[in-house]
Parts: sequence; structure tokens; C-alpha cells
Amino acid sequence: MTHWTLAARAAKMNPSVIREILKVTERPGIISFAGGLPSSKTFPVAEFEAACAKVLSKDPSGALQYAASEGYGPLREMVAENLGRQSAAAGVPWNVDPAQVLITTGSQQGLDLVAKILIDAGSKVLVESPTYLGAVMAFMPMEPNVVSVDSDAEGLDMADLASKTADARFLYVLPNFQNPTGRTMSEARRAALSAHAQATGLPIMEDNPYGDLWFDQAPPAPLTARNSEGGIYLGSFSKVLAPGLRMGFLVAPKAVYPKLLQAKQAADLHSPSFNQRMIFEVMQDGFLDRHVPSIRALYKAQRDAMLEALAQHFPQGGNADDTLTWNTPAGGMFLWARLPQGMNAVDLLPHAVDKGVAFVPGAPFYAGQGDARAMRLSFVTPSVEEIQRGVAALAQAIAEQRGR
Amino acid sequence: MTHWTLAARAAKMNPSVIREILKVTERPGIISFAGGLPSSKTFPVAEFEAACAKVLSKDPSGALQYAASEGYGPLREMVAENLGRQSAAAGVPWNVDPAQVLITTGSQQGLDLVAKILIDAGSKVLVESPTYLGAVMAFMPMEPNVVSVDSDAEGLDMADLASKTADARFLYVLPNFQNPTGRTMSEARRAALSAHAQATGLPIMEDNPYGDLWFDQAPPAPLTARNSEGGIYLGSFSKVLAPGLRMGFLVAPKAVYPKLLQAKQAADLHSPSFNQRMIFEVMQDGFLDRHVPSIRALYKAQRDAMLEALAQHFPQGGNADDTLTWNTPAGGMFLWARLPQGMNAVDLLPHAVDKGVAFVPGAPFYAGQGDARAMRLSFVTPSVEEIQRGVAALAQAIAEQRGR
Repeated sequence: MTHWTLAARAAKMNPSVIREILKVTERPGIISFAGGLPSSKTFPVAEFEAACAKVLSKDPSGALQYAASEGYGPLREMVAENLGRQSAAAGVPWNVDPAQVLITTGSQQGLDLVAKILIDAGSKVLVESPTYLGAVMAFMPMEPNVVSVDSDAEGLDMADLASKTADARFLYVLPNFQNPTGRTMSEARRAALSAHAQATGLPIMEDNPYGDLWFDQAPPAPLTARNSEGGIYLGSFSKVLAPGLRMGFLVAPKAVYPKLLQAKQAADLHSPSFNQRMIFEVMQDGFLDRHVPSIRALYKAQRDAMLEALAQHFPQGGNADDTLTWNTPAGGMFLWARLPQGMNAVDLLPHAVDKGVAFVPGAPFYAGQGDARAMRLSFVTPSVEEIQRGVAALAQAIAEQRGR
Repeated sequence: MTHWTLAARAAKMNPSVIREILKVTERPGIISFAGGLPSSKTFPVAEFEAACAKVLSKDPSGALQYAASEGYGPLREMVAENLGRQSAAAGVPWNVDPAQVLITTGSQQGLDLVAKILIDAGSKVLVESPTYLGAVMAFMPMEPNVVSVDSDAEGLDMADLASKTADARFLYVLPNFQNPTGRTMSEARRAALSAHAQATGLPIMEDNPYGDLWFDQAPPAPLTARNSEGGIYLGSFSKVLAPGLRMGFLVAPKAVYPKLLQAKQAADLHSPSFNQRMIFEVMQDGFLDRHVPSIRALYKAQRDAMLEALAQHFPQGGNADDTLTWNTPAGGMFLWARLPQGMNAVDLLPHAVDKGVAFVPGAPFYAGQGDARAMRLSFVTPSVEEIQRGVAALAQAIAEQRGR
């Protein structure tokens, strides 16, 4: 018998609770508010086709050969330029040096690299409450002590943050249209957080996969733009182009970039040269400026349909504890709802699935004690008509479950 | 000032010594025996072009969307089938279950995942002497105690291995046309190693990126085929198709597959769906059976040119310590040479570069004390004519350096 001895950290690596929960939703015909998948209608297939041909005719050897761990130079320059332009438009100039950009295999890999270089066993890592579960899963192998900071509709509770900052290795935060809540950190809160971080020396890990998907106005400028030496910024092409190419990036200060680069080299040598060049070709000539507005319009229409259906099926105005309540995300893919008092989203799910609709219970997104009444509703995958039917089914499931 | 506190493991992550050494070789006009790059002449560009078009017309949503962490089902089946077929042809049936195949972002990622689930700080990890430096770099963040096992032209020294097996988490081994030496583990040594591993319970990590690149006859069957519950097999598409897509795979037994899968999910969610489907499309209808022989023929001709040039410039027959000596790899990309007594490959390199030729000193490939006279010569990147000129330049550099 082979003696497989697992590393201690392996014991802390568990299957995603959400993946396990979602197994009950994998039934044909289910309307899913559960997935975190961008709408495939938004994938620029023709542009990818053209980019493939271009990349393979222009410099096939370059596209198919081993390449630098840092990433494809022209793409790094384009990322730096785009970030600088967006941040300036949001009122905070950010002069991003392409040398500080590292191309990653999806922004998920950025989380893995950051964890490797900044987390020792037992290191305190601060997260929002709730937070992106995938980040916690990327951190777990390095055995951190993940500490939740109280959060409200505007973002972090600054007093709670202040009380927990000492000895924290970093704060992980998703300021724009957060997964799972869809909420956005206000300008006032960003200013306060940035001042706090600079005063205390707390490094900020800013994850921004959804920032481009705003509906009425662009979100406030990134935290990293306000103090680029004090944070690592993680970005992604998954939501504005397509996730199946697994392309993301990070921007890191000189204090940590070399170690992130070494971790990257050891992890997969470099992200696919071919994909980096495809993304670069597609993004030429300001393609995103034409393309992203169409994604925004689609998701906004679907968010509106969900808000309308919710308002129709769950009349508000009485005691908030007696009915379903929800927020109004200003962008992104998710809406955060709360069941009436006494109900539990995990218990409701199989009943909702019987009625033909799925969602994700909110509790697993909390590093600490979760809110059992919370649920995440994605509005990007189903059509408007499916959203209407799905919310009706959800209302029926809730009513029946309450009636028991 | 931001307080960046690095994890203890970050201190053990250092830039590749070889990358640093190679910086002196980055000069235009240098004939490089230094690189580890497959010849770009072997990339099937037209087939990739056709595969791109097919993947994007067949199921664009599937190719561009998020996907399962395990990898693309049809590709996993194809990998399982190919391994089974090759192993049977080498005399050892291996019934590979596609459910045990995990698609990785290059086989380098397989090393990272294995390290995460099997290495605790201080865990003993056995490696060949010398070994692939990139593997040691992938293991280092998990802070192993890397222990070299003596090795000769046939592979591991079994007595030395036996004396070091106790408490080892695993043995990492490259049985075919090893990087850096080009040597192949003999059938007798494989049989002995497999018996030893089964008797002692020692897990084997078998890395096989070069196995398909044999010149006259296929290498003996994989170690993992002999005891599939006792090892993890790592494979790659980089050397038979192209490295720039970063596609590899591993085959792991049920005892560790679920943990590897969780580590994979946390690391980058999944390898690019698009690339997995491209590789699958290119490999349809037995493409590799037609394509790989042309790579073998090319590399064999270049190996022969190098052997011939070496024999011409460094006459053998006298005292082996007085001249350059080298081995005759039966496949792969590298040849291993040894300088005359008193010489040092690191000292020679800048002088060789002045003469117009580069190589990689061998010492950095040893986890323990390295052989300062050793050098790795790659024969796949330069042309036959360049190989001839390069070896002449090397001979001149050695003669002049010795004359000093």
C-alpha cells in the first residue's frame, strides 16, 4: 500500500459548499438565478475568430512558444493605459507602470499568488462580510486566520475595521458590485478606507472583476489608484470578454511584484501566450468602448426585470421581517435578498428547485457566522421572460414553505 | 508606509538561477544551446487555425464560458485512451480511468498542485541528481526538505534511494530523456524502482513531458502504469503540439485526486476551456501519430549533428578528464556534457558567449552539491549549420579558457 501522507493544509481544503449545494439545482428546465456565469450572448465570437486568425498569421511562433512570466508586453501596456484612463475619468489619476502589471490565468490565480507570498499559517486576513467565497478558498491552503469585518450597504464598517486592523497581513475587498451582494463601496467609504490604510500601513487587496459592468454611472475610482504603493489590484477579462480564456491581471507595487512574479513562474511558467495575444488583438482600437455598453444594457434590463418581478410578488411597505427584501445593485451580476424572519435559504432551496427555480443561499459567503436568511440572485444568465417566471416560482416556494 | 509582511515561504522563493545566468546570453547573433524551447518549426499552425475556427463555430458558448475544474470531458477521455494505448505498446497495460485525469495549465501547474497537497514545511521530498529545476521551484513555496538521490546514466541509484526512502512524502522523477541530462531510466531500473516503491509505500511523482520525443525506439512503460494507485503521472502537450497554449494534465489515484481537484479549483478555477477544445480538435483522428514522427526526425537529425560536431572538435580516447565528454540521449531535447578537469561551466559561459555560443551550466540543476564541470546543451532550437558553428565556437572558448 502506498503511504499517501497529505499536507496539513490539504485538510483545510474542502469542496466548495456552493458547488455541493448547486448539485441539487442541476436539473433540466430549472430557471437558474444561482450561476455566476456571464451571459454567453455577450461573448464577441466573431471578434475572437478574427483575432485567432490574426494572431496565428502575424507571429505564430510567438503565440505558440514559451514566453515571459510577466506576460505579453503590449497587453501589459494596454492594461496599464486602460486603468489609468478609467481612474482619471473617475477623478483620481493613476499612472500605472506596465512593469508593475502581471498577466494571470484568470484573476483567481492572482488570489493564489497573493496568498502564497503574504500568508503564513495563522496570519490574520481581513475580509468583508459577506465576501467572495473563491477568494477564501484560494487563501485557505496557506492556512490564514480569516477575520470578517462588519459591512453595510456602503461597504466596510470603519470602526469594526479599525478594531481588527492590528497585525493583519492585508484586507481583501471587492468595492464594485460585489460578489455576492452586488453592493458598491461609496466614495465616502473609499476615502475613509484609503486614509485608514495609509495611516495604519494596512495593505489592501482590491479585486475588481465587475467594475466595468456599471448601469447608470461608473463607480468611484479604485482604492489602489489612491495609494498605489499600498495595494494590489486584481482585474479580469472574464466579464467583459469571456471567462473561457482564463485571462486576468494584477498590478502590484515594487515591494511585492518580484515575489509575485516568482510565485507565478513556479505556478504555471506563464499564462497562455496565445490567449494573451488574442485578448490584445480583440481589444485593439477601443473595442471594449463599443462592446461593454452592450453588456451593461443587457444586464441592466435583466436587473430591472428582476426588480420589477420582485416588487410585484413581494409587496413592500409593511414589516420588513415579514416578507422578502432585496437591494438594488448599480451594476454587476448579482442581487442580494433576504427571506422573511424564521426562514432559512438552505432549507428553501430544494423546495424552490421543485418549483423550477434555483438560487444560492447566502450563508456560505460569510467567513464567520452567516445570515441564514440571505440569498444571492444572479440576473445575468436567464432571459427577462425566465426572470419573471423564476421570481413567480420563488414567491410560490416561499409562500408554501412559510405555510408549513 | 504600507507594512508589507511577506510570508516566510516567500523568502525561499528566488529568481531562477538559470534565468539570471541566461541574461548574459541574450545578445543578438548568439547560437543558443541554452534554451529549453521546442523548435517553432514543429508547431502545427495550420491545424491550430482550423481548430480555432471549428471550436468557435461548433459551440462558442462552451468554449468561451466557465467550465468544470476537472477539464473538458472529451479531452480527458482522449488523454486516458492515449496513455493506455502507449503503455500497452510498451508492454504494460494501463487502464486509465478518464475520471482520474485532471487537465492543468501546463504540466508545471501539476507540480504546484502536488506540492500544495503533499508537502508540509520540512517534508522530505526525494529528487534525482540532477533534476528539473522548475520542479524544485514549484515545490519550494511549500518549504520541503529536498533530498537528492544519487543517479547514474540508467537512473536512480537504488541503494542510495533505499537509504533515503524513510519518511519521504514522495519521489519526483523524470524517467524519459530527462531535463537536464537527456538520460532515460532503463527497464531494469524501472522494475526495481517500482518494486521498491510498492514494498516501502513510497509515492512516485512521474513527470513525462518528453516521452513522445524518442528517436529510435519508444522508452519503457511508465512507472505509474505499473502501480497506478501509487503514483501521480504528469503529462504535457507543450512538446508535441505547442507550449504557448499552456496545456498539460495529470493522472492521480482516488486517494489524492479530490484534493488535487480542490487545489486546482482554488488556483485558477479551470484551465482555459478554449485551449482544451483546441487541443482536442487538433488531436482528432490520430493527428499526433502523423505529427510527432516529424518532430522526432527533426530533433534526431539535430542531435546527430551535435554528436558529430562534438566528436570532431573533442577527440575521445585519451584521459576523459582531459577533454569534454558527453552522453548520447535517446530522445528529448538535451545532451549533458562535462568539461575537462579544473574547468568550471559558470566561468566558461561569458567567454563562450564572447565566441558566439551559449549553454546552461549544470550545477544549478542539483538540489545538493552540483557538478561544476557539467553543462546542458539543447540541440532543438538551432539549425544543423548553427549547431556545427556553435560547437566549433564552444571548442575554441574551452581551448582558450584552458590556455589561461
